[in-house]
Amino acid sequence: MTYCVGIEVDEGLVFAADTRTNASLDDVRVHRKLHEFEFPGQAAFVIMAAGNLATTQLLISRLRRDVEEQREQNLCAYRHLFEVAEYVGRILVDSQVKSSTPEHGHDGINTQATLILGGQVGGEQPGMYMIYPLGNAIAASPETPFLQIGESKYGKPILDRIIRPQTRLEDAARTAIVSLDSTIRSNLSVGLPVDLVLIRTGDLRISQRMRLAGDSPLYAEIHGSWSHKLEQAVASLPGFPWEGR
Amino acid sequence: MTYCVGIEVDEGLVFAADTRTNASLDDVRVHRKLHEFEFPGQAAFVIMAAGNLATTQLLISRLRRDVEEQREQNLCAYRHLFEVAEYVGRILVDSQVKSSTPEHGHDGINTQATLILGGQVGGEQPGMYMIYPLGNAIAASPETPFLQIGESKYGKPILDRIIRPQTRLEDAARTAIVSLDSTIRSNLSVGLPVDLVLIRTGDLRISQRMRLAGDSPLYAEIHGSWSHKLEQAVASLPGFPWEGR
Repeated sequence: MTYCVGIEVDEGLVFAADTRTNASLDDVRVHRKLHEFEFPGQAAFVIMAAGNLATTQLLISRLRRDVEEQREQNLCAYRHLFEVAEYVGRILVDSQVKSSTPEHGHDGINTQATLILGGQVGGEQPGMYMIYPLGNAIAASPETPFLQIGESKYGKPILDRIIRPQTRLEDAARTAIVSLDSTIRSNLSVGLPVDLVLIRTGDLRISQRMRLAGDSPLYAEIHGSWSHKLEQAVASLPGFPWEGR
Repeated sequence: MTYCVGIEVDEGLVFAADTRTNASLDDVRVHRKLHEFEFPGQAAFVIMAAGNLATTQLLISRLRRDVEEQREQNLCAYRHLFEVAEYVGRILVDSQVKSSTPEHGHDGINTQATLILGGQVGGEQPGMYMIYPLGNAIAASPETPFLQIGESKYGKPILDRIIRPQTRLEDAARTAIVSLDSTIRSNLSVGLPVDLVLIRTGDLRISQRMRLAGDSPLYAEIHGSWSHKLEQAVASLPGFPWEGR
């Protein structure tokens, strides 16, 4: 499994992803699920992927090749982010081996993947899309300023409560880390290290990137101090009528 | 769907359950899922149920009948909580219509239910069990001091971080309400009002009971102040290296 979250606030975009892949409980590995595409001064994109690893690796390889060979269709060839999403969606559809076709047999393997694509093209505001296995996509919006893929339930309440378009970019990034940490703590299939990337509005490049491992001082401090802060918050909630406080 | 959580701390037991049942998105009703069985001075039990409503209603009716008619097997007839769990498990198995038998046809209806049973029998410490559709059961323990049934993922992180055997009973109850509120906010299939019951160790009765609706001052205050506390907690987390704070 996987957990990735993308957040769109006025100040920019936050991307955070875990790195655990597993074919089963006894086949667990570390693979990067957050991929950067940077064209400084022109555009910057991040793609996060959940689902079949062969599919997403093929997708990323094809996207990089298309840019390198300056093919007619490539990440740099569009003036609008929705067109980039359409293009990535087409490559995604092509990268999913159709296991249900007769020649491949119905072997029950799911080769689908779901993506979060975010970034900014020069002349446009930043944006973020969830791209489905069919290649179609939905955008984040002020009412829904975050997108999640993979094991999304554990980390959703904190995002629901905190993320607004006005949230500061670094606060959104801290919230994303807490959301990841909550998921890692509650579900074995999501694991450290965590990749974190920020794209600040107008930067047209990757503004900040970090990899947080369990022994990263920042992660350890967030991990430790968050539990303590929650305990204090619970203790300071209103009392019950019979407590007389 | 449903979300119920039971917590076992040194000071006693907490039970919290939502009240939304739905056959589909356009068939939503309010039904009680938390049931009290009180034999003051002798024993007190709470049963919470997730799954098929016909099954759980039949189960509860049978448990009440067995007590009223003072049948050989009834909730009052045991000296150990694990025996009560075994008995409730048997009634549960009997109450699940076997839809997969040839005469009923394979109609795809799931008649299973999962229960949380907690309480105290005089002379024993309080305890809590999760009873599976097969009738077997597992107990809560100091390492796993809470049990959840139904839509459990959204509300798990807060429990993982806070609940310990030493947690005060009322703090455990506040945590349970936050866990319910997080789930209600993030998932349409779980809804208000929330039933809350506390059994304090040694009381041998229902120590406290509350129904919290959206307009209950306590729920509204918890609902409102929790978001605010979380925002403050996030803002006070350690800064990133580039923030220079």
